[in-house]
Amino acid sequence: MDPLVGSTARETLERVSASLGCGPTDAEVAAHLDQHDALRHLRDQFLVPKIKDLPPSDLSLVDGAEECIYLVGNSLGLQPKTARKYVEEELDKWAKAAIHGHTEGSRPWAWAENNIEELMANVVGAKPEEVALMNGLTVNLHLLLLSFYKPTSGRHKILLEEKAFPSDHYAVESQIRLQGLDPQKSMLLLSPRPGEETLRTDDILEAIEKEGDSIAVVMFSGVQYYTGQLFDMAAITEAGQRKGCYVGFDCAHAAGNAELKLHDWGVDFACWCSYKYINSGAGGLAGAFIHEKHRDTIQPALLGWWGHDLKTRFQMNNVMELQPGVSGFRLSNQPILLVCPLQASLEVFNMTSMQALRRKSLLLTGYLEYLIQHYYSKDAAQPHKAHVHIVTPSDPQQRGCQLSLSFSVPILKIFRELEKRGVACDMREPNVLRVAPVPLYNSFSDVHRFVQTLGSALTAGSQ
Amino acid sequence: MDPLVGSTARETLERVSASLGCGPTDAEVAAHLDQHDALRHLRDQFLVPKIKDLPPSDLSLVDGAEECIYLVGNSLGLQPKTARKYVEEELDKWAKAAIHGHTEGSRPWAWAENNIEELMANVVGAKPEEVALMNGLTVNLHLLLLSFYKPTSGRHKILLEEKAFPSDHYAVESQIRLQGLDPQKSMLLLSPRPGEETLRTDDILEAIEKEGDSIAVVMFSGVQYYTGQLFDMAAITEAGQRKGCYVGFDCAHAAGNAELKLHDWGVDFACWCSYKYINSGAGGLAGAFIHEKHRDTIQPALLGWWGHDLKTRFQMNNVMELQPGVSGFRLSNQPILLVCPLQASLEVFNMTSMQALRRKSLLLTGYLEYLIQHYYSKDAAQPHKAHVHIVTPSDPQQRGCQLSLSFSVPILKIFRELEKRGVACDMREPNVLRVAPVPLYNSFSDVHRFVQTLGSALTAGSQ
Ligand SMILES: Cc1ncc(COP(=O)(O)O)c(C=O)c1O
Ligand SMILES: Cc1ncc(COP(=O)(O)O)c(C=O)c1O
Repeated sequence: MDPLVGSTARETLERVSASLGCGPTDAEVAAHLDQHDALRHLRDQFLVPKIKDLPPSDLSLVDGAEECIYLVGNSLGLQPKTARKYVEEELDKWAKAAIHGHTEGSRPWAWAENNIEELMANVVGAKPEEVALMNGLTVNLHLLLLSFYKPTSGRHKILLEEKAFPSDHYAVESQIRLQGLDPQKSMLLLSPRPGEETLRTDDILEAIEKEGDSIAVVMFSGVQYYTGQLFDMAAITEAGQRKGCYVGFDCAHAAGNAELKLHDWGVDFACWCSYKYINSGAGGLAGAFIHEKHRDTIQPALLGWWGHDLKTRFQMNNVMELQPGVSGFRLSNQPILLVCPLQASLEVFNMTSMQALRRKSLLLTGYLEYLIQHYYSKDAAQPHKAHVHIVTPSDPQQRGCQLSLSFSVPILKIFRELEKRGVACDMREPNVLRVAPVPLYNSFSDVHRFVQTLGSALTAGSQ
Repeated sequence: MDPLVGSTARETLERVSASLGCGPTDAEVAAHLDQHDALRHLRDQFLVPKIKDLPPSDLSLVDGAEECIYLVGNSLGLQPKTARKYVEEELDKWAKAAIHGHTEGSRPWAWAENNIEELMANVVGAKPEEVALMNGLTVNLHLLLLSFYKPTSGRHKILLEEKAFPSDHYAVESQIRLQGLDPQKSMLLLSPRPGEETLRTDDILEAIEKEGDSIAVVMFSGVQYYTGQLFDMAAITEAGQRKGCYVGFDCAHAAGNAELKLHDWGVDFACWCSYKYINSGAGGLAGAFIHEKHRDTIQPALLGWWGHDLKTRFQMNNVMELQPGVSGFRLSNQPILLVCPLQASLEVFNMTSMQALRRKSLLLTGYLEYLIQHYYSKDAAQPHKAHVHIVTPSDPQQRGCQLSLSFSVPILKIFRELEKRGVACDMREPNVLRVAPVPLYNSFSDVHRFVQTLGSALTAGSQ
């Protein structure tokens, strides 16, 4: 029986600590949860940096031989151990067989990406033929918008968050301009209510209901990069499509983090990068999804030879035989060196399921929240004590693994003090620290150590 | 004194063989030329496959321990020896420093591609700020055409070769459609004269002169992938621009092969891949060029955060500060694993110059031509003897290193017999064998061995 199921994180922590005869904040609880973590072995599939190897570490403060507290998988995932092996296999093949590598070996370069699309599809809840691995995220977003954004005089808007990730903002803005339209009029930006930090689902749905007739595309992130908010993609999809809009998601922070059901939700299109939660290394191969319902109707705007049916691609007769669906959106041949680490990581994902990872994630992030609230909440009795505010929604259904923290004291100093002490997390302008315990490789002890370290950082950083 | 300068290949061969007291086709000539090849040491920078490691080799026919005869650098360049070292450095950095790799080390991931653009610029005759390394070739071609192809009712055509590389053909076709125009009317395809295999420069210039007023973009390849013809890019650029057209080149087969002067010629835009003559491995990072004269006037149609000025890119305020010129066309962050082998190869290129490589290339390919003509020309006296026809222009100024060969006997059998004997070259549908002695790593002995082997292949393949 899985001891972690069927209760809130708080309930689980209280139950476990009671059974251990200690308090919920004691390190024994973390140790116990790690011991009973059914996914614990997956950490062994990754290379966890040592504190001494992180450039900002101050070895007078911490033991350099220990593994660092890596809580920044939301930005760059850790290296899967088999990544190097696969890369070396392909370097060997290039060295030994050169041109023959295109068709030889377990990863023939000419169709290597096709071999791992099923593994990726499992991670995002799609059918294999709905997924293409190619390019970078922003490139894919553009390729998709060129087909899905077909404004008319009445229906010309794109709805997105006011503080969308910059690349998405620029992508949407430039797509609107490319159509000869004015972003001032056609870019519909949704902000949280005054005084609030995250969007309410009801407000999103209401905006869609109210403005939907003029909206061509609803383009949201799955998980917001800054606040960590997980949007209700099913409801947004449903609401948008009811009003006749296409609905697409940038799943950069959702893929490999939240449990996605792109197919079942009927999402029209999606794109994501693989270097964050999917651990493919900096600038790794990105993904694109088009729902199979559009298989024969949505055509790529831009064509290249890689969109041509593989069977006849090399006949070179300049008569396009377009692959159906998202596969027809391929333009260029694929970089084999990027396929390797992505395969390595996807194989680890496929040793478990997103459902199991999400189950652990709920407890892991709930634990982080519990400890932060316990130690660092605003305390009316101690008005001068530095405190931490959690920007991310407290409803577990509205977040992935990341918590975004803001501070009552200047953030940069806190961040630097954490870095000195072997914590890898990240700061995002203007004012949040993003902390992401990743269920694939982070432990409950990582979280406990982080919260302890945060105490030292707050003390040092507030002086 | 460089013994190879100042004469035609034929003159050099005759002079050398006379001085050696042998015939121009004797192996001693190849050995002598190799000995006196000032670029000979560069071969040591590459991993040359052994015959036994090439899957089609038949070890009953050839010695597997020998290096293969690799004449297919026009398709996939050999691996530079330092490629693996650089890749491993970055895998190590990822393993040890993870997220800090973005800003640390000799190749900080967040701007690693910028560090090698100067090396690339030297290879294509450009200023560093005119070059961006990003995406795949077809992706870049599209990004460029979106800005350079702005059809009006009067000027709406794109001029290209009738048998352009399929991806280019599809790219142009889809760009025309994206503008709501009809490829039948707006895609101007130029064919060789009836009975001829390559285009005459005069015919190209005349077509531009005649149709130029209705042409928006002249889009040629630098070197034709099938015939190996090197176009007169300077003259085409001049002619196109005189008529008010933009002129762009797909330099996939020209970059690292011909001596390019993209800047001096005033070429408007260009793109190329790096996995052929530039040896970056399958699917390597592609290049894009926009002449500095367009720096402030040609804007990217599609925007992404990587086009934002690096200094303020991560302030994430969604107000675009676009980098000027081609750098503003960047969309996604760069794959570090693709930067590594490309750097390795570009460093080798920068140990010499394209001028020196081209000088060797003229003799090397001239030698190949000489031997083929000597042994395998059509012989009126022996009408049944298999013979070889060289499709590529005989004028050295109109070709790079590749010769495209057609045969009086079925080509597939010849190709297979060559492969069995340790030759790596390629066959392109419908009917040519492409043979590319690459001055960077091929030797005169490679060429001599190839021609000997071709004899055996013709004998075996004609049976
Ligand atoms: C002339 C030419 N153009 C375009 C391409 C397509 O390149 P990519 O798949 O890198 O987009 C190639 C590939 O061989 C080519 O030779
Ligand atoms: C939400 C989101 N969208 C887009 C991007 C840009 O991705 P790329 O540089 O891979 O195009 C990122 C990168 O962090 C992101 O987090």
